[in-house]
Amino acid sequence: MTPRGRPRDTQVDERVLRIAAALIFERGYAGLSIDEVAEQAGVAKTTLYRRWPTKDHLAVAVVARLQADDEITDTGDIRADLVNYLEKIAAALNRMRAAGGREGPSAGVAGELVAAAARHEDIGRLAREQYARRNAMALALIERARVRGELRADLDAEVLFDQLAGALYYRVLITGAPVDRAYAERLVSSALEGSLTCPRS
Amino acid sequence: MTPRGRPRDTQVDERVLRIAAALIFERGYAGLSIDEVAEQAGVAKTTLYRRWPTKDHLAVAVVARLQADDEITDTGDIRADLVNYLEKIAAALNRMRAAGGREGPSAGVAGELVAAAARHEDIGRLAREQYARRNAMALALIERARVRGELRADLDAEVLFDQLAGALYYRVLITGAPVDRAYAERLVSSALEGSLTCPRS
Repeated sequence: MTPRGRPRDTQVDERVLRIAAALIFERGYAGLSIDEVAEQAGVAKTTLYRRWPTKDHLAVAVVARLQADDEITDTGDIRADLVNYLEKIAAALNRMRAAGGREGPSAGVAGELVAAAARHEDIGRLAREQYARRNAMALALIERARVRGELRADLDAEVLFDQLAGALYYRVLITGAPVDRAYAERLVSSALEGSLTCPRS
Repeated sequence: MTPRGRPRDTQVDERVLRIAAALIFERGYAGLSIDEVAEQAGVAKTTLYRRWPTKDHLAVAVVARLQADDEITDTGDIRADLVNYLEKIAAALNRMRAAGGREGPSAGVAGELVAAAARHEDIGRLAREQYARRNAMALALIERARVRGELRADLDAEVLFDQLAGALYYRVLITGAPVDRAYAERLVSSALEGSLTCPRS
């Protein structure tokens, strides 16, 4: 989103997003209210609405900020690096699932965010840019493993990462199955068997 | 959902779901209204609200009915069978994506349904039961291919299908990338390389 008028106060942004995140994780999506965030942050409602026209916009900004912290680590062992990265994605999804003290298989806030991106053109664009950045990092990791001979030369890197990240989202958003480190390990094993240059033993 | 009072009139259900489906696909999720469906179907609003308490409930029932038609075919060639089945899932997702004449990468109605399942306990349960049935069909297909030696004995069938279906949902709901038959072919190739009993040539 482009700032309008005078330059944005990033400290205010930070405070607002921190308060909004706390509200979402404490009460779930339904418990987030722009008015309450404005009050807690000591910021005029109009300021908040100008910057985030709907609750959907504010919630997506919160998640974008959390995901920006998700680093990908390249240790030279593609299997371990993928498992670690998928575990981070799973943890973020589980946190959204459990927001508001929710238990059980519902996707919770993760589901609401998917709908927000589907409903508002601008949010959709923002979310897709964000995921494109994440995908690019993962593809670079896979490419380096390919170049050093850990993965086979003709692998389909884009599809490989779709399968890995996709399986996590499928379980959280669609089937309601759990995702954790043990699942990430099964997933990477299953997907990599087709990507390793060495034949299966 | 269990029927209450006198037995449901399945012909009325059929008509209502057909009208609701037409409205969703013509106008998108925002264009669906229980009141308008009641009017077009010549059914009392109260009858509709008793059976489907919210628009979310009605929309999920529409999709459940459409998905019931998705058959899985076992020709004895697991690669072809999976590609064909994934192509059906992709087509259903694309139809929801394009509902209301929408173009471009937004998930459209598919995104709204994910949120509906996350928001309402009963819808979530219904949706998960539906996906469990679909997953079971796919797992049986994979299992038969394993038994006849097309797939390796120690494959992780559950993860394999998560990777396949998951990649489609990931593109539609998250990254906004297209899904079609060509993509289903790339996907099955990438995933199966790790599942074939014969070594890669």
